[in-house]
Amino acid sequence: MSDNDQTEFQPKEPDEHEGEHGFTVSDDFIRRLQDLFDSAEAREEIRIACIELSAADVAEVISKIGFDRALELIDILGEDIDAEVFVYLDNDLVTRLFENMPDWDVASIINQMESDDALDLIEDLDEEAQTKILKTLSSKMRAAIEEGLTFPEDSAGRLMQRSLVAVPQFWTVGKTLDYLRVAKNSLPDDFYDIIVVDPMHHVVGEVPAGHILKAQRTERIADLALDNFHPIPAGTDQEEVAHMFRREGLVSAPVVNEDNRLIGVITVDDIVDVIDEEAQEDLLKLAGMSDTHLYKDVLYTTRARFYWLLVNLMTAIAASVVIGLFEGTIQQIVALAILMPIVASMGGNAGTQAMTVAVRGLATKELSKANAHKIIGKEVVVGALNGISFAIIIGLVTWLWFHSAALGLIIGVAMVLNLIVAGFSGAAIPVILDRLGLDPAVSSSVFLTTVTDVIGFFAFLGLAAAFLI
Amino acid sequence: MSDNDQTEFQPKEPDEHEGEHGFTVSDDFIRRLQDLFDSAEAREEIRIACIELSAADVAEVISKIGFDRALELIDILGEDIDAEVFVYLDNDLVTRLFENMPDWDVASIINQMESDDALDLIEDLDEEAQTKILKTLSSKMRAAIEEGLTFPEDSAGRLMQRSLVAVPQFWTVGKTLDYLRVAKNSLPDDFYDIIVVDPMHHVVGEVPAGHILKAQRTERIADLALDNFHPIPAGTDQEEVAHMFRREGLVSAPVVNEDNRLIGVITVDDIVDVIDEEAQEDLLKLAGMSDTHLYKDVLYTTRARFYWLLVNLMTAIAASVVIGLFEGTIQQIVALAILMPIVASMGGNAGTQAMTVAVRGLATKELSKANAHKIIGKEVVVGALNGISFAIIIGLVTWLWFHSAALGLIIGVAMVLNLIVAGFSGAAIPVILDRLGLDPAVSSSVFLTTVTDVIGFFAFLGLAAAFLI
Repeated sequence: MSDNDQTEFQPKEPDEHEGEHGFTVSDDFIRRLQDLFDSAEAREEIRIACIELSAADVAEVISKIGFDRALELIDILGEDIDAEVFVYLDNDLVTRLFENMPDWDVASIINQMESDDALDLIEDLDEEAQTKILKTLSSKMRAAIEEGLTFPEDSAGRLMQRSLVAVPQFWTVGKTLDYLRVAKNSLPDDFYDIIVVDPMHHVVGEVPAGHILKAQRTERIADLALDNFHPIPAGTDQEEVAHMFRREGLVSAPVVNEDNRLIGVITVDDIVDVIDEEAQEDLLKLAGMSDTHLYKDVLYTTRARFYWLLVNLMTAIAASVVIGLFEGTIQQIVALAILMPIVASMGGNAGTQAMTVAVRGLATKELSKANAHKIIGKEVVVGALNGISFAIIIGLVTWLWFHSAALGLIIGVAMVLNLIVAGFSGAAIPVILDRLGLDPAVSSSVFLTTVTDVIGFFAFLGLAAAFLI
Repeated sequence: MSDNDQTEFQPKEPDEHEGEHGFTVSDDFIRRLQDLFDSAEAREEIRIACIELSAADVAEVISKIGFDRALELIDILGEDIDAEVFVYLDNDLVTRLFENMPDWDVASIINQMESDDALDLIEDLDEEAQTKILKTLSSKMRAAIEEGLTFPEDSAGRLMQRSLVAVPQFWTVGKTLDYLRVAKNSLPDDFYDIIVVDPMHHVVGEVPAGHILKAQRTERIADLALDNFHPIPAGTDQEEVAHMFRREGLVSAPVVNEDNRLIGVITVDDIVDVIDEEAQEDLLKLAGMSDTHLYKDVLYTTRARFYWLLVNLMTAIAASVVIGLFEGTIQQIVALAILMPIVASMGGNAGTQAMTVAVRGLATKELSKANAHKIIGKEVVVGALNGISFAIIIGLVTWLWFHSAALGLIIGVAMVLNLIVAGFSGAAIPVILDRLGLDPAVSSSVFLTTVTDVIGFFAFLGLAAAFLI
């Protein structure tokens, strides 16, 4: 093989705009683009720089150049902007962009999308904007979206796409191939499973596309169909759907209505978004947020964060009230004021660890009634063991610092108590909230901090009041 | 259509063992099984109860009945246990199970797996166990795993499976179909894309299986190949791979070696696990853990949590040292001791919100150098605005509680200062750690708490010392 051949067959080089890892738009590219925006006459150059980018790349550029320039870029690209770009963008950002774009442009973009992607964007708009845009859509797309909006938010019905490949169970592979070749233009661009239906349009099986490719033309579809298929009722919550995809390693699954008739299909790319969203949600909820609000303005973000901080202020004041009970004790021994945050803070941290485990376990369904008592029990023991270690450490530190063995003993005992309480409440609070039908990620940490602060201050100051004075 | 027909074509009923949502083993089933285990003579009944379950269901049962019974159940099921079960189980749990099972059974299970799944389990075993099990594997599987182990941990090379479908670019659809039909037994069970290669085995394109199904036999593979394909170098980090799958909505992607030759394929089901893992990792790391340790024993868990708590103890002691600086001031005004945790705690909570946004933004690459200053600036403004709100609230509360307008003013000023600092450090600390090449999720919260505690106590007590005495 000569060098020449090697060159000829060389695989595609990474494009210039690709970043260090090759999968993302580089910050350098963004910076150069920003410079172009700064010089007013560079519309054509901006156009040239962006026209060759993939839809995912354009989306990344739009999300990083700032809102006004994003609008300008969309205007510059005009009809050359791929509708797909808006599918890749964050929904908050798309909502803001759509509100600032001519209705006609918005409609033309949405008309080019798959119905599930269009629905995903339109459901986030306020009602007025929805009505305005729905009016300008093609009648087919409008019907699909209006029906989609009848399903509950975050349900399988909202996630699914209508366009799918279904064949009767009595067909052969040959007949299926002939049908697919003829019908190709009315079929979805990508599909991974062929859904097998009976004459009532009930789902009776699924055949992966790859299995059809490997089969002889004479084989019957019914014989190829997997035993293990998963029709999803349209009302199923998306978290449940994601759990099933993950659990069974699915790539697509049919969605059925109340009469068990096939009405759509959910593909794994939508599920990847859901999994991402759900995992992110837990992280955000534990910090008292529903969203990163990366694309929301300052006032919206400030307001969204305010309520959580207000609840935490109540918690902090409750802790202060507990400290206030021991005002006299603190006046006599100021060392207590100096040391008291340590016990409370260690309880908060140890409790957060147990709580994170429980919240995650509930989300992944690894923690359920069948093993909750075991997991709570384990956290109590872990809390006790670490409590003993840290009691010894902080006891010695206190003894050396304040030259009082008694004070060291008291902070040690308070530490053990608070870490046991932290282990127990960290694991138990999410489980209890979950049983009460509340979202454990949302309010666990407020309850937990209240418990570990109150017990932390009360145990330390109370023991000191009882034994030191 | 008669009622009779309706019954005949009725879709599969949910099985008795399925839970309320139909996608999971019910707690009730687990409880009944536990009862069977309690009566010593029920091996056959346990076998009957579990033999019909799908692999994912058996995995769920095993993870919930406790370790000893899991071993017993595996023994009861014997050769009827599907190797797939171990793919669904948590890796920690599999490691412990394998250590307690006869080597021969372990080898026979691993021999039945796809090479990527086998590698995923074996890489977690300690070296001694690895060597022992490798020796008992089939030579083909051993070679595949030994080669897999040469790739860095968490890289594309570890995720990929070797078994794939590749065809030369000059073939037609007809020739491809004929080949697939003949070679079916040597092909992977499931595949979603056909990889197009040149004579040097360089990847030159991909064709989704569905596109082949829709094409005429005479069409050329080269004409069907997507422009946009994504060969992944084997050394690429799995997080990067997941980012690409998510960004481009991929279902599978070819993996290439240093010479750009095709050596494997990564499918979306492996990526779903990675995405899940990575999102979970951030959540866990923010609480100072690397894993939920749901399946580890108490001592291991205690030790794993100890170091994080130790670091937090240092932080808490640092805060206490700051308080100690104002010992005299506190002695004169005990109200300061009562109120001081409020400012620190509000700073911690507000900072955590900003930090969560930044950590998530870095993970999803929505936050990069190009927009970091904007996001940090926004967090400072949000901190200032909420700081003013809470300054007013806590100022009034303090005035009423301690009948001192001056004390109210001081706590208000301290609150504004600490919430601005919290907004700034919450967003800036993860960005700085990321630029230094450190994992922002791991240590951001320790740095943040140190800053908000120290500034919180210092601002409040310092202002009080300066103006009240």
